[in-house]
Amino acid sequence: MDDDLRRFVAEDVGAGDITTQAVGPDARFDGAVVARAPCVVCGLAEASAVFAELGAKVERLARDGDRVGAGAVVLRVRGPARAVLTGERLALNLLMRMSGIATATRALQDKVATRNPACRVAATRKTTPGFRRFEKRAVEVGGGDPHRAGLWDAFLVKDNHLLVDGDVKAVVARCRRLDASKLVQVEADAPEQAFEAARAGADAVLLDNFAPELARATYKRLKAEFPRVMVEVSGGVTPANVEQYADAADRISLGWLTHSAPAVDFGLDVDARAQGA
Amino acid sequence: MDDDLRRFVAEDVGAGDITTQAVGPDARFDGAVVARAPCVVCGLAEASAVFAELGAKVERLARDGDRVGAGAVVLRVRGPARAVLTGERLALNLLMRMSGIATATRALQDKVATRNPACRVAATRKTTPGFRRFEKRAVEVGGGDPHRAGLWDAFLVKDNHLLVDGDVKAVVARCRRLDASKLVQVEADAPEQAFEAARAGADAVLLDNFAPELARATYKRLKAEFPRVMVEVSGGVTPANVEQYADAADRISLGWLTHSAPAVDFGLDVDARAQGA
Amino acid sequence: MDDDLRRFVAEDVGAGDITTQAVGPDARFDGAVVARAPCVVCGLAEASAVFAELGAKVERLARDGDRVGAGAVVLRVRGPARAVLTGERLALNLLMRMSGIATATRALQDKVATRNPACRVAATRKTTPGFRRFEKRAVEVGGGDPHRAGLWDAFLVKDNHLLVDGDVKAVVARCRRLDASKLVQVEADAPEQAFEAARAGADAVLLDNFAPELARATYKRLKAEFPRVMVEVSGGVTPANVEQYADAADRISLGWLTHSAPAVDFGLDVDARAQGA
Amino acid sequence: MDDDLRRFVAEDVGAGDITTQAVGPDARFDGAVVARAPCVVCGLAEASAVFAELGAKVERLARDGDRVGAGAVVLRVRGPARAVLTGERLALNLLMRMSGIATATRALQDKVATRNPACRVAATRKTTPGFRRFEKRAVEVGGGDPHRAGLWDAFLVKDNHLLVDGDVKAVVARCRRLDASKLVQVEADAPEQAFEAARAGADAVLLDNFAPELARATYKRLKAEFPRVMVEVSGGVTPANVEQYADAADRISLGWLTHSAPAVDFGLDVDARAQGA
Amino acid sequence: MDDDLRRFVAEDVGAGDITTQAVGPDARFDGAVVARAPCVVCGLAEASAVFAELGAKVERLARDGDRVGAGAVVLRVRGPARAVLTGERLALNLLMRMSGIATATRALQDKVATRNPACRVAATRKTTPGFRRFEKRAVEVGGGDPHRAGLWDAFLVKDNHLLVDGDVKAVVARCRRLDASKLVQVEADAPEQAFEAARAGADAVLLDNFAPELARATYKRLKAEFPRVMVEVSGGVTPANVEQYADAADRISLGWLTHSAPAVDFGLDVDARAQGA
Amino acid sequence: MDDDLRRFVAEDVGAGDITTQAVGPDARFDGAVVARAPCVVCGLAEASAVFAELGAKVERLARDGDRVGAGAVVLRVRGPARAVLTGERLALNLLMRMSGIATATRALQDKVATRNPACRVAATRKTTPGFRRFEKRAVEVGGGDPHRAGLWDAFLVKDNHLLVDGDVKAVVARCRRLDASKLVQVEADAPEQAFEAARAGADAVLLDNFAPELARATYKRLKAEFPRVMVEVSGGVTPANVEQYADAADRISLGWLTHSAPAVDFGLDVDARAQGA
Repeated sequence: MDDDLRRFVAEDVGAGDITTQAVGPDARFDGAVVARAPCVVCGLAEASAVFAELGAKVERLARDGDRVGAGAVVLRVRGPARAVLTGERLALNLLMRMSGIATATRALQDKVATRNPACRVAATRKTTPGFRRFEKRAVEVGGGDPHRAGLWDAFLVKDNHLLVDGDVKAVVARCRRLDASKLVQVEADAPEQAFEAARAGADAVLLDNFAPELARATYKRLKAEFPRVMVEVSGGVTPANVEQYADAADRISLGWLTHSAPAVDFGLDVDARAQGA
Repeated sequence: MDDDLRRFVAEDVGAGDITTQAVGPDARFDGAVVARAPCVVCGLAEASAVFAELGAKVERLARDGDRVGAGAVVLRVRGPARAVLTGERLALNLLMRMSGIATATRALQDKVATRNPACRVAATRKTTPGFRRFEKRAVEVGGGDPHRAGLWDAFLVKDNHLLVDGDVKAVVARCRRLDASKLVQVEADAPEQAFEAARAGADAVLLDNFAPELARATYKRLKAEFPRVMVEVSGGVTPANVEQYADAADRISLGWLTHSAPAVDFGLDVDARAQGA
Repeated sequence: MDDDLRRFVAEDVGAGDITTQAVGPDARFDGAVVARAPCVVCGLAEASAVFAELGAKVERLARDGDRVGAGAVVLRVRGPARAVLTGERLALNLLMRMSGIATATRALQDKVATRNPACRVAATRKTTPGFRRFEKRAVEVGGGDPHRAGLWDAFLVKDNHLLVDGDVKAVVARCRRLDASKLVQVEADAPEQAFEAARAGADAVLLDNFAPELARATYKRLKAEFPRVMVEVSGGVTPANVEQYADAADRISLGWLTHSAPAVDFGLDVDARAQGA
Repeated sequence: MDDDLRRFVAEDVGAGDITTQAVGPDARFDGAVVARAPCVVCGLAEASAVFAELGAKVERLARDGDRVGAGAVVLRVRGPARAVLTGERLALNLLMRMSGIATATRALQDKVATRNPACRVAATRKTTPGFRRFEKRAVEVGGGDPHRAGLWDAFLVKDNHLLVDGDVKAVVARCRRLDASKLVQVEADAPEQAFEAARAGADAVLLDNFAPELARATYKRLKAEFPRVMVEVSGGVTPANVEQYADAADRISLGWLTHSAPAVDFGLDVDARAQGA
Repeated sequence: MDDDLRRFVAEDVGAGDITTQAVGPDARFDGAVVARAPCVVCGLAEASAVFAELGAKVERLARDGDRVGAGAVVLRVRGPARAVLTGERLALNLLMRMSGIATATRALQDKVATRNPACRVAATRKTTPGFRRFEKRAVEVGGGDPHRAGLWDAFLVKDNHLLVDGDVKAVVARCRRLDASKLVQVEADAPEQAFEAARAGADAVLLDNFAPELARATYKRLKAEFPRVMVEVSGGVTPANVEQYADAADRISLGWLTHSAPAVDFGLDVDARAQGA
Repeated sequence: MDDDLRRFVAEDVGAGDITTQAVGPDARFDGAVVARAPCVVCGLAEASAVFAELGAKVERLARDGDRVGAGAVVLRVRGPARAVLTGERLALNLLMRMSGIATATRALQDKVATRNPACRVAATRKTTPGFRRFEKRAVEVGGGDPHRAGLWDAFLVKDNHLLVDGDVKAVVARCRRLDASKLVQVEADAPEQAFEAARAGADAVLLDNFAPELARATYKRLKAEFPRVMVEVSGGVTPANVEQYADAADRISLGWLTHSAPAVDFGLDVDARAQGA
């Protein structure tokens, strides 16, 4: 089990699950993890790893990315109570959050794809501290683009950076010189800034807080002149207006996916089938 | 800086903030962290620690728990761009989530207090893996009760445990024998179960999924007979109906506080005052 | 193997057991771990884990908590010399200390039980830094109560705390408000303080340095008035006088168990049976 | 603060000292750490580091190795209650154990020195898992020899090793070849074995379980023939008979120092001087 | 001090520098770190951090990237012997290796620049395990391009990857889809492969094992058609032939920089000036 | 897998090998690790552990210490591309460096042995930070002596130490008193210093920067008078002159082995045999 999951287990279990110890640590418990609402399920590997680490046998009845209905059993978990009941809450917490994000991403990506199949919905860095890779993974499972992992794996020159040094051409050159193996993206508040960045050699531009129509017009002119430059829109994009940007960008990023997508409810029931056996 | 914050910095910064390095790591940046909406602010110590660790000077203009209006500057941050701009996103991510939870907790706690000042709104273990102590802290700052830290610091005998062993009296005795320094709480699906638990010596009972009226009646009868037993309600409690439970419990816990309280928007602006200087 | 045991192995083995490497790392060694004195054996899982981690096969001939006589073989250990001889000292160190504590706890608990079967002998926090959970586990195996794991899992308001704030009623209320899921215990130097604490709503009181008779009288009056309040005695309790407190408390705690219980001698002999084969 | 001390703090404080938080975390507490019995004090740096890490100011009134009387104040500790009271138990646990070992070592070393000033009392590897370096340090402070740190820093060919390969000459040669920078010591059960080892080129021999007279005779003959070979006795040495080995060895090692030296009682009192101020 | 340096100190110092402890840990030692050969110095921050962590005062007389002559004093180090002498070897090991790489990089970069100032000499991933970031940093200090930090921060589709899936167009599309924020580079064994990769949308191509003339011709044709595509040569490049590739690429990478650049000799002398004082 | 190897994997793989993920993570790849030059192979266990950790099956066709020719297949590696290709570079980096050192050590040890079979070639502490134990292991595999692991496992009193305290007799006595279980070695710049050290009771002397003839003469006189004292030469020893010291020392140490032995080229080819199958 990887270090993050191990730390999550430690966070919940600490010095030991005293209730399960008192109730009957050697009793068996055969359980079923059930989606309480329709969703794109995500987090099955993580939830399974939690139960397995604690000593339960897990059978997966779905795969990350599957659409399942309310009441669908996604995992069967068998083993000692100290494995199943001790892991219950963490496993559900992982599934709730990751499925929530995957479900929301899938919905927005599908909406966008009806107008422009090449356009990708993307995450931002507005993630929960310490939980980013799980949230980014959920965006991927939902068909979206995870975007930068952090500050180290791509250049993104934002408005505050340009306040420090406004010479876009020089800034792009310094990025390239510092590390020629990384993509260079520049944020633009107005169309002319976007053109300036593309001319300066940026690999990608980010149109920040552009209204849909202005974004669309800018996008067309940029791609006509710089077909290899990726164009992204961000800022003020919500589930309500995302569709209007579908033909205005190669990529649409929105923080909402990771900070506000609603969790999907999951629960652990007794495995009726096992009881019947 | 504590290990969690250090890990959060590492998550975002990784091998280095290459953009800031390219733009001008030695340039100064004087910024102001601004609340974009009215809220109970929370996370100021954590956000400050992030900036300080990276080398910026931080001045706090508010304290955790303060109510602030939209536009309020809560922190001034001065120093090299590589401190201020590198720490920006993580600091804001901490403030957004923690203030969101504190604001929501405060609102519900106040609502409840109008009907029963002694009743506490409480969190559950439905937290984001790895981020629990920050979420629990936000509940505290909002005036709520953080509830159990994890599986190790209090007994909570739930329905699934009673499926394993239904003899409440024996279960409570075993809890007490295993560790007499921990509080023993038992979940009840019906009034008679709650009485059985109290009689068995439980320190607290949890009325699970009781409708408000039934909860109220049960609560009164329980307290009359067992004044030292704490009574909690949980399950199906939402911001919409929380008030109805105010006189039905000593404590009302709801997962919503930590998995669905909306984030509060915060931003980093140039510190106008500093610019003017 | 858990992190603590892994660290213990590293402490002793460091960069490698050079003697065993020089003597014949591929030679076999079949050994028997033998108790050199009668005892309640404890630490078998830990000792076994050490040998197993290093590559030996371990057979357990006793279980934690068993009473064994001098000369009893508690483990058979077979495998390469580099596993058996390298693990020898650490395994014995674990058994010596843990069995020492378990044996002493068992003796005191039995002594106390003859006068009051409900009374529990308990450990304190006077443990060896870094080794507490093994010492607390040994107390459990010996039939005792491990008491608080640390400063975080129960409130214990001691004399020094009351010097800071002597208003017991207010202190208990603040404890409850800070975390209603934790047991609140208050130390008392005199009977009236114990009653004050019970009246203030404490879950438990600790009679500190009470002579046996005063403790007995106080205990009876307290339980008569507050049957749900746990009464503990501590301070000045030794193996010599512990029996006199048996009917004066629900729990008797003494630091002696973890800082002065004598170690039990264990050794590693050649497994005669294996040699004979 | 080093990693071990940090881990010890974490062991006791965990998620936080809830009692101190409830009582008044911002209250001051000026305390005095007092020896309750005459002793050679040891652990002052470690105890001070604990208090300092938690935020208290510490003044040392003694140095490790000093003999102090009952009632002697060895540290003054001033600061917020959350520093002083939270660190109290761990600081005392360190002082109790380390001073106990230093006091016992000093006593035995002095006893031995009256008959042979060149002879050293030494520790063994029979230490508490995870706490070895503190125990070895206490032996040093008491004037003793810490002996091997672990299995990696010197060869010690014991009886069980010689069961694997009984050709001492070949074993010593292999030790030397494996790592010529490490001291090679060989255990002997009888005088002729000790001579065999010295002839084989061992740097040191260990006379195991030799009666004092036999040890004395063997020692004299060995040193006459091999003046550069260190001679150590071990096995069955106790405080009661250690003196008889003083002129029978260059070094006398006994496990008793680290597994059975009695702890010295220390306490934290209110600093009367500060109160008077 | 960062974790890597801390680990390096632990590797050398372990349980303590016993020689310095024996010789006189409180003695002062004022030293001068001297280059024994002309070089581009690198590693001054790292060497200084080692001395500082151990308690010495360090004065830097040069900066990373400076060319210094044989005999040049680059650091003055003052403090207790236990700081200066204990840190000596590690500090010199860092300087020797890092300056060796920086010096070699500078020489090759200068040679290349005389023919093509825009062309960059670059490192590869043929680094010493665990020491990569120091080696990459030395390449940067020497004026070179560090290239990929690892397998996660840029796509580099190599010959073995194309054996798995030879459809370059599909592979580039999948890279883009997996993570649109990362640069996509494709290795080519022949000119037509390079063109295929550029047409497929790769951001960069790597001409592997091209003779200088073929590389030059291919480079010109590629840039003419795809001016935004970066062209790199690698494979078989040595200090002897690197110049011939200067006008055949935007970047020339060679493993030699990190696995075979000769170390520069540095030593710690007594600081004559301090002695004179 | 041990912590060092795990850290090395993390260094290269970081958040994931994105290229292999894009190309076809589930494709198989059967590879052969091939020596590109004749060598004494070393690092097979480490390279195998890397592949195995990532999920490949490894078959070893050679053992550490074997001499192999150019083109020799030393490992066959089968499994998913994400195991084989992801592990390739790290596995090769380990083999290249470790085999380079083992090959060089073997060559020098053989050269020395023709003149004096008892004389050992040895490493120094001039190793790559963080990679020492792999380099020392390679010296051992090549038949050399690894020498001190660090500053903690043997005393080595060098010229700078003698500047602090020049009384060799007193220094040796303090070493012995501090830790009698460690070898005491003293560096000498001239013959008389070596004799002084031997007389003072040093276990070993180090003749620093002695010309071969002076070393030889000193060696003979020292061994005649102090047969148990080990004599080592160091300083200015190179592959070119090492042979001349063969009969002038028990041990010859040279930093060149670990900082300048040339790496041996290794590569990963498609396993022709597997393809043919």
